[in-house]
Amino acid sequence: MRATVMYAAGDVRIENVPDPEIEEPTDAVIRVVRASICGSDLWPYNDLAPSETGRPMGHEAIGVVEDIGAEVRNIKQGDLVVMPFAFSDGTCAFCHEGLHTACVHGGFFDGYGVSAAQAEAVRVPYGDGTLYPVPVGEDEALLPSLLTLSDVMGTGQHAAVTARVAPGHRVAVVGDGAVGLCGVIAAKRLGAEQIIIMGRHSDRVELAREFGATDVVSERGQEAVERVKELTGGDGAHSVLECVGTGDAMRTAVEIARPGGAVGRVGVPHYEAIPAAQPLFYKNVTVGGGPAPARAYIDELLPDVLEGRIEPGRVFDRVVGLDGVPEGYRAMNEREALKVMVNPS
Amino acid sequence: MRATVMYAAGDVRIENVPDPEIEEPTDAVIRVVRASICGSDLWPYNDLAPSETGRPMGHEAIGVVEDIGAEVRNIKQGDLVVMPFAFSDGTCAFCHEGLHTACVHGGFFDGYGVSAAQAEAVRVPYGDGTLYPVPVGEDEALLPSLLTLSDVMGTGQHAAVTARVAPGHRVAVVGDGAVGLCGVIAAKRLGAEQIIIMGRHSDRVELAREFGATDVVSERGQEAVERVKELTGGDGAHSVLECVGTGDAMRTAVEIARPGGAVGRVGVPHYEAIPAAQPLFYKNVTVGGGPAPARAYIDELLPDVLEGRIEPGRVFDRVVGLDGVPEGYRAMNEREALKVMVNPS
Repeated sequence: MRATVMYAAGDVRIENVPDPEIEEPTDAVIRVVRASICGSDLWPYNDLAPSETGRPMGHEAIGVVEDIGAEVRNIKQGDLVVMPFAFSDGTCAFCHEGLHTACVHGGFFDGYGVSAAQAEAVRVPYGDGTLYPVPVGEDEALLPSLLTLSDVMGTGQHAAVTARVAPGHRVAVVGDGAVGLCGVIAAKRLGAEQIIIMGRHSDRVELAREFGATDVVSERGQEAVERVKELTGGDGAHSVLECVGTGDAMRTAVEIARPGGAVGRVGVPHYEAIPAAQPLFYKNVTVGGGPAPARAYIDELLPDVLEGRIEPGRVFDRVVGLDGVPEGYRAMNEREALKVMVNPS
Repeated sequence: MRATVMYAAGDVRIENVPDPEIEEPTDAVIRVVRASICGSDLWPYNDLAPSETGRPMGHEAIGVVEDIGAEVRNIKQGDLVVMPFAFSDGTCAFCHEGLHTACVHGGFFDGYGVSAAQAEAVRVPYGDGTLYPVPVGEDEALLPSLLTLSDVMGTGQHAAVTARVAPGHRVAVVGDGAVGLCGVIAAKRLGAEQIIIMGRHSDRVELAREFGATDVVSERGQEAVERVKELTGGDGAHSVLECVGTGDAMRTAVEIARPGGAVGRVGVPHYEAIPAAQPLFYKNVTVGGGPAPARAYIDELLPDVLEGRIEPGRVFDRVVGLDGVPEGYRAMNEREALKVMVNPS
């Protein structure tokens, strides 16, 4: 089959690789209906060390079950399924608690030893625990929004949940990427009264407004902090969704949090430590978050997607075939595209 | 009156100072029945820069109301009151939310501009909002436990609450000082199934066991981490109470937290940033805490104290008069005394 392999920063190729096959009796193999490029794929796109073997890419997909191992019970050939970005056995204590990204047998579709999703097909460990069947056909207009349940919408939801968004809360979203925009959707769903999107791309903040953002802060650094305080009556936001992953974003998030508030961080941290132990402490601000248990959130988000109450699929502003994937990386990296959907067929 | 003034690290003196008086119509003045030396007083005891004027010391007290300003309504002369370590107006949004340490008009009894408590009397800003009348006389055997409601027991409670202790939880307490021991009491009250105290002073861990600790870890560093993991079935603790305030303690707290767990930190942070952003993130561990809203917790803790269900006053292992305060600092600093109570009369 054809698949995406990254050989070094900026060097993304589409290659012929062996078809994935059932290796364990708990495996499933899915044909990829749609995959996508994740903001986190841009980190290796900018810093992957060159290698001879390369790294297969992609961890967000929706697909059709092609084959299942002998022990798979909950899904069958032909089912349309969401493939969350982490695989999980569905049976351990963490899976039962809804923290599938801490599954004791789980892991990530990182391409190292495990399959990857910007490809025609994927081998999925723990098919029963990992894949989530959805009750629609593969030619539905709902595909983009269903695809977001594999990662970006679940990640925005996780930011909102760990930032403890609740009815009446003032919420600030740091970052206007696809995760931040899904964070706006999540905050609105959870009853936020005010949603401040912090970003400077006019098309993205426009979409954020359509998703429910009430205010836009396009300033940066200390000016942005002052502006958010001004917009929140001087106190800061009850809930801050940190959707970037840099030390600067985290510092801003802590500074704009209201005393007693919470920061939910879902951007993979590209910093060594959480800055500002002291303001954080004196304000009694809580910092939570991490890799989203996207699998767990599908139960709650799917009905809203199916019934059209939320449309997170609108974050996709470009669709490419596999051949277009390298260009898709470039466009996302240069912020020409917000988020790229891949149709491998 | 006589009061405690610190002039430099290690230089604690008892001096004659002007009697405190009502300055604002919302003030109260209390005669101190019992005060105490706080673990946080040991930071200046070790690093206060020398000055001519000195710093009046003490922020934990129980006292009798001697005088009130014209606008004070809820307390009257002769009431026995707990004086939490922060003063608060009792009327702002934060006070209503139970985060009195973020009161917009509040502050700390730090001796700079405001009164301090290791003295015969204290001027208390916002008498109505700050002081908590208790329905017992001043010669009661309950005084030590009531005194802990001014800080150390409320702080242990805050560590447990922000670490999200709940029935059935495995809990670890980093630090066997008075706050850690009160954290054990709080964790037990909140239904913890397992309470691991991390400390190496045999008398303190013995008291921790009497308060409800089920396990003791006296190792340090990586050995301590391994030992806690072993005791918690390999996963770590759901709730970690960080009751020290050093970077090492915080690092340990993060490492022993179970995925999805929470760290409640109440030790004043003597580090610049929260270490280990990455393990914290990948484990989805939440970090919360800060200066405890001791005032807010009295509602919940007082009945247990009055009815003898908890005895946090047992953390006091030495009682001194004002003349004994300098020696009390020395003894606490050298870990000869766990916590020192001051009887100024």
